[in-house]
Amino acid sequence: MKLANRMQSFTSFIVMDILERAIALEEAGHNVVHMEVGEPDFELPAPVGAAMVDALMRGETHYTHSLGTMALREAISRNYLRIYGVEVDPQRICVTTGTSAAFVMLFGALLNPGDRLAMTDPGYPCYANDALLVGASTVRVNPPLPDGSRTPYCLTTEVLEENDLTGVDLFLVSSPSNPTGMLTDEAVYRWLLERDIPVISDEIYGRLVYEDATPRTALSISDDIIVVDGFSKAFAMTGCRLGWIVAPPELVGPLNRIAQNLYLSPPSVAQWGAIAALEQCDDHLEEMRSAYSKRRERLMVGLEELGLKVAGRPRGAFYLFADVSRYDSDSLHFCRRMLDEAHVAATPGVDFGKNGTQSFVRFAYTRDLGQLEEGLARLRRWLPTL
Amino acid sequence: MKLANRMQSFTSFIVMDILERAIALEEAGHNVVHMEVGEPDFELPAPVGAAMVDALMRGETHYTHSLGTMALREAISRNYLRIYGVEVDPQRICVTTGTSAAFVMLFGALLNPGDRLAMTDPGYPCYANDALLVGASTVRVNPPLPDGSRTPYCLTTEVLEENDLTGVDLFLVSSPSNPTGMLTDEAVYRWLLERDIPVISDEIYGRLVYEDATPRTALSISDDIIVVDGFSKAFAMTGCRLGWIVAPPELVGPLNRIAQNLYLSPPSVAQWGAIAALEQCDDHLEEMRSAYSKRRERLMVGLEELGLKVAGRPRGAFYLFADVSRYDSDSLHFCRRMLDEAHVAATPGVDFGKNGTQSFVRFAYTRDLGQLEEGLARLRRWLPTL
Repeated sequence: MKLANRMQSFTSFIVMDILERAIALEEAGHNVVHMEVGEPDFELPAPVGAAMVDALMRGETHYTHSLGTMALREAISRNYLRIYGVEVDPQRICVTTGTSAAFVMLFGALLNPGDRLAMTDPGYPCYANDALLVGASTVRVNPPLPDGSRTPYCLTTEVLEENDLTGVDLFLVSSPSNPTGMLTDEAVYRWLLERDIPVISDEIYGRLVYEDATPRTALSISDDIIVVDGFSKAFAMTGCRLGWIVAPPELVGPLNRIAQNLYLSPPSVAQWGAIAALEQCDDHLEEMRSAYSKRRERLMVGLEELGLKVAGRPRGAFYLFADVSRYDSDSLHFCRRMLDEAHVAATPGVDFGKNGTQSFVRFAYTRDLGQLEEGLARLRRWLPTL
Repeated sequence: MKLANRMQSFTSFIVMDILERAIALEEAGHNVVHMEVGEPDFELPAPVGAAMVDALMRGETHYTHSLGTMALREAISRNYLRIYGVEVDPQRICVTTGTSAAFVMLFGALLNPGDRLAMTDPGYPCYANDALLVGASTVRVNPPLPDGSRTPYCLTTEVLEENDLTGVDLFLVSSPSNPTGMLTDEAVYRWLLERDIPVISDEIYGRLVYEDATPRTALSISDDIIVVDGFSKAFAMTGCRLGWIVAPPELVGPLNRIAQNLYLSPPSVAQWGAIAALEQCDDHLEEMRSAYSKRRERLMVGLEELGLKVAGRPRGAFYLFADVSRYDSDSLHFCRRMLDEAHVAATPGVDFGKNGTQSFVRFAYTRDLGQLEEGLARLRRWLPTL
């Protein structure tokens, strides 16, 4: 069977290979500490589950509007006002089947074959593959490495000035960033808008910020920015497959046509859970955020004590991007050995790009403190053997 | 905001416009008989709802494998053996976020920009738009019109011989067909395979067959055929967004890479409902099928009494494709007037292609007999006024 040419460039997640290898080890009777997966370990907040059971009982199991129920779109709008103080017309909100669908819909509506999507390196690998589907290519913008005087892996206007953005058709900013946890300043968005470069702001980790950080949305800068967000990370609703786009009004019609053809409707029952998430789960979110914050502190200190220096001071998401070059110059090789020999799973930096990623490993703190302590203890025994 | 060029060709469903117009009429206090929507009016079968509540209680709310849980893939495999007597390795089964995702994944894996996807005219309009996303074009194959001696709108090897299939890269057969309800003979699949044209068989309506028809799958012809199927139509699970692909083994890896990037995972809770659908809902399915069968008979007789001749003798799905040219030579104009003046909603044939579709309207029998009687009564009063 002849495959389409794009499949030659369409990469697999290395993290999935790591996960499969980890599962094979577990099936062979070993215990593995999982720091590879970008999925909350928390259960669905109880009000979300209750709302979904209610929706099932009420028979809310049919197709909804392709852009989601008006009830959910209005709830998302109210949430923007309550959390960020920003007014968003519910008509501009498109509910999607996870943020995954949001990117496919946006690239389908905005990118011609041969067009160029800009994103940071390192960055979330799906963006590039989604762009590949519609024939667009990816331009990687390289923030500074940790060896200089500037904040490592942080996207700034200085970085934008340094990179050649000629012919870029769309710029994707993720803040907080996966895999580095860095935030992006308002100045970056303004710089892009001033140059008429359309901007998508991926805010899927936006509620998971620590220390001084207050939740922010790029919608407070300009309504011309396209915002993507979702329920998976903040509310531990990964399997529900629900996200949303806030789009300029003229883009809603085209996005709806794509939704009608590619998705028909977002999952219906989950949409009722999502309203409960936004309106009844402030305490649950705060508990999870607080737990992530404690884990982050512990893991950051623990890794650095072992000589695995964390790049910069990550302020959001649930990842630490740590330098392993003291032990191995090849992070993929390092991760494979760490899994096989120490039974600790993490994701090699090369999964996220080429900008210094050979030296880095992404550790996710999506397991509880006990698991993280055990992982650190294993590394403490294993690293000296290298 | 500059849109991608493909959006100029990316059509909206006219049925969605009809539906929105119908809803506006209802909001203005009118009662509308809905025969436009291709969605079962039945509620979720009780065992499916119960299994989904159980899954929620058990916390089955996380990402699953990108190709679905092995439990569901094995249940689908057992179902092929039990219903069709066909052995299918669960490893060849890819669970998808509705059949919508199945087509995007398959076109992404198989079609290069400029490639040609063949499908019948009339046919399901999303196919063409999904192909457009990856830069492929659509070749329409025209089965005979009802004015000749042959079975109208039926895809046969004779039709294949008549059409120029040079340069066709992929052929999509839907049986039973939307909008005509026609079945496709095995000879058609064999003809295509003999000429090395890859075949996708869309079997989403495969369990909804009437009269002499026994459920069939193209997998009983050859494992080289790619089969797409789903839970929405047979089990009234539209809002659950679950379908599947049965693919040749060498295609599973590429489909998994696309699933990892474009979907991450199918909805998790619904996957447990789907197992219950396959294993505990034979009676529910038979009740629904029997109800559709009665509705079909009634509506077919009723429409023909009014001079709206049904094309051929449809044997599956839940649609009748009826000729309205006695009253209007423009089915879109006819449908708009029928909705505004008689408050009966149906879908103009032009939503499905250009092959004689100007004269045809698709009536869905997805409302109960009482509603269908009311619709026919309204037409009986309204048609003489034309």
